Amino acid sequence: MVQVSLRFEFSAAHRLHAENLSSEQNMNIFGRCNNPNGHGHNYELEVTITGPADKKTGHVMPLGELQRIVNEHIVDIFDHKHLNLDCADFRELNPTVENIVQVLYRRLKPHVPAPARLDSLRLWETPKTMAEYRE
Amino acid sequence: MVQVSLRFEFSAAHRLHAENLSSEQNMNIFGRCNNPNGHGHNYELEVTITGPADKKTGHVMPLGELQRIVNEHIVDIFDHKHLNLDCADFRELNPTVENIVQVLYRRLKPHVPAPARLDSLRLWETPKTMAEYRE
Amino acid sequence: MVQVSLRFEFSAAHRLHAENLSSEQNMNIFGRCNNPNGHGHNYELEVTITGPADKKTGHVMPLGELQRIVNEHIVDIFDHKHLNLDCADFRELNPTVENIVQVLYRRLKPHVPAPARLDSLRLWETPKTMAEYRE
Amino acid sequence: MVQVSLRFEFSAAHRLHAENLSSEQNMNIFGRCNNPNGHGHNYELEVTITGPADKKTGHVMPLGELQRIVNEHIVDIFDHKHLNLDCADFRELNPTVENIVQVLYRRLKPHVPAPARLDSLRLWETPKTMAEYRE
Amino acid sequence: MVQVSLRFEFSAAHRLHAENLSSEQNMNIFGRCNNPNGHGHNYELEVTITGPADKKTGHVMPLGELQRIVNEHIVDIFDHKHLNLDCADFRELNPTVENIVQVLYRRLKPHVPAPARLDSLRLWETPKTMAEYRE
Amino acid sequence: MVQVSLRFEFSAAHRLHAENLSSEQNMNIFGRCNNPNGHGHNYELEVTITGPADKKTGHVMPLGELQRIVNEHIVDIFDHKHLNLDCADFRELNPTVENIVQVLYRRLKPHVPAPARLDSLRLWETPKTMAEYRE
Repeated sequence: MVQVSLRFEFSAAHRLHAENLSSEQNMNIFGRCNNPNGHGHNYELEVTITGPADKKTGHVMPLGELQRIVNEHIVDIFDHKHLNLDCADFRELNPTVENIVQVLYRRLKPHVPAPARLDSLRLWETPKTMAEYRE
Repeated sequence: MVQVSLRFEFSAAHRLHAENLSSEQNMNIFGRCNNPNGHGHNYELEVTITGPADKKTGHVMPLGELQRIVNEHIVDIFDHKHLNLDCADFRELNPTVENIVQVLYRRLKPHVPAPARLDSLRLWETPKTMAEYRE
Repeated sequence: MVQVSLRFEFSAAHRLHAENLSSEQNMNIFGRCNNPNGHGHNYELEVTITGPADKKTGHVMPLGELQRIVNEHIVDIFDHKHLNLDCADFRELNPTVENIVQVLYRRLKPHVPAPARLDSLRLWETPKTMAEYRE
Repeated sequence: MVQVSLRFEFSAAHRLHAENLSSEQNMNIFGRCNNPNGHGHNYELEVTITGPADKKTGHVMPLGELQRIVNEHIVDIFDHKHLNLDCADFRELNPTVENIVQVLYRRLKPHVPAPARLDSLRLWETPKTMAEYRE
Repeated sequence: MVQVSLRFEFSAAHRLHAENLSSEQNMNIFGRCNNPNGHGHNYELEVTITGPADKKTGHVMPLGELQRIVNEHIVDIFDHKHLNLDCADFRELNPTVENIVQVLYRRLKPHVPAPARLDSLRLWETPKTMAEYRE
Repeated sequence: MVQVSLRFEFSAAHRLHAENLSSEQNMNIFGRCNNPNGHGHNYELEVTITGPADKKTGHVMPLGELQRIVNEHIVDIFDHKHLNLDCADFRELNPTVENIVQVLYRRLKPHVPAPARLDSLRLWETPKTMAEYRE
């Protein structure tokens, strides 16, 4: 078994705001990230799959195929969007980096073909803030 | 004369849209960046000043003072904002990276104390897209 | 459960020297790092916590709170210091990257509030040298 | 137990081509990487060892010694080579990033002296493509 | 006038060898880069254009158009190639980073539409080696 | 004429302190950088030379030769040193990034052989603080 990771980028706007908290609580917890009109980030996503290297090809899966799957199921959906306003996933879910990475994981997982399987996603919101999810 | 550069970061949302162009022209020129609700970036700003190194201190100007000036006149104003909706500078000016860097330059220039002077600003919208302005 | 990582920086001087070894052994093992007056690094620290994303906030813990804790218990103590001369932790402990990361871990661990817990620390001494510690 | 990682670089040419597949299949799976005369990369290798920090030195092993071992058993062998044409390891093995990382692991493992042991290798072919191997 | 820079990547193999020098001289000057079967790099190219920001669009030129031009006249020609064997430009010209950057400049310059003009190219062969050319 | 840049690294300790200023003034201007026992950095140095690409070799000068010169006249002198205590250049000169870059320039300039000449040095003290000097 060997792991392969590819990196992707998407740019999106978001606002951190919890509906069930008061304005003051939202400001205390999210600070500037609570700005009503939103702000934005260059998100970097590292997709890691695991599996055996195929005896014939030497790849866990063809890398061009993995790129196609991630672009179709993640990048094309979230790139250049306002996550709260444009994306149904975040209409009732606060788009924190922890929530986003789990949404992306659930979207991507069923599309990685056996014998490969999705191992983990790492999502950087800024060069200093990152969330990682695996099951 | 020697140059000193400091780097700053701010996260903001924006939408590229030219009022005097048709919807179709906007889509052709700006593509996904024309998304009505906006998207966002982690902007990186490199501020370069030039001047003689002070005989006593060895600095062109105290670096803590330069940080204070850039934070007051740029970062605090644009960080975690939606440039089109929250910032008067971009109410009628399309927030392309070329326009943003010139706005930041004009805001910062008068606050760099002689004998130092502002040399140039370099603004990265993504790790692959950058604009530079000097007079 | 999801992991969140934040990055911090601190600049410090240190000297690698083992009291119980001869001068020649110290030179053989530590080379230039054994220079009596010390040298220094821009240390980069990645703090990773793990826990459930809070149902209300969507965060494992408020990120501003995590920043405050790491700054208080690590950055403010070691930033812009000579580790051997200024910091009690390293008066009798050689400040190798392996020893530093374990000291930082023990200092930080009790201050991460449940249900979050400290998962691991990764400490870069240079862009090419890193130590990681978890219990 | 603590982990230590060092980074190394080597530049090499390679061609992705599976002998047991047709020309068309090779093109479908490897695309431009199948170019007959090869192309090349700046490979980045992160070597991670694990072990106790020695009570006397504070190191898992002297870092200069680890550098020497990796240079002798990996960098000096593959740096500035055409992997398919110059390196016996890849005469019959397709030099995909997954295969290369496993070859490097097997070459390096026996040379890490106890009580340290080789934990894992991470190999970047480009800043966006990486393979990781551990046993 | 404002400058805009975009970054591109291409992976290529090459061999440094001067026909009019002896084998020994080639080894002395080019060292490992003289390996007969070649080696390779992930080249990074920064293309900088200069011009006025268009009053209507706010761009020096549409960035998607600049990407298209650079991909057509540089990336598609040199990406995943062996520069010495596959590219006519380097059949009689040694593909040093200094020669490559000038070849790319001459190829790209006539395709940047007025009022924009090509200012300079910066080409990284490795993260530590770069050549820059402007007229 | 074409420019070539190489990057180098050295790790050093320093203390910012101006002899002709009071303790209070030193604290106001240099803040934490005034810590008596010093602190340290991973300095990154970009050396840029300019000249014609030699008709025979295709290089402005052999890059191995440039590396040798910079290592001899800069890296070997300042790497793993305490600039204030170990280096005569900074016995009476405050080692600010502006002063260091000028000292390095004057040391290196006479050793770059014609027809190449030293164009400029860029010195990063941290990833966010840089000084550049040219004559």
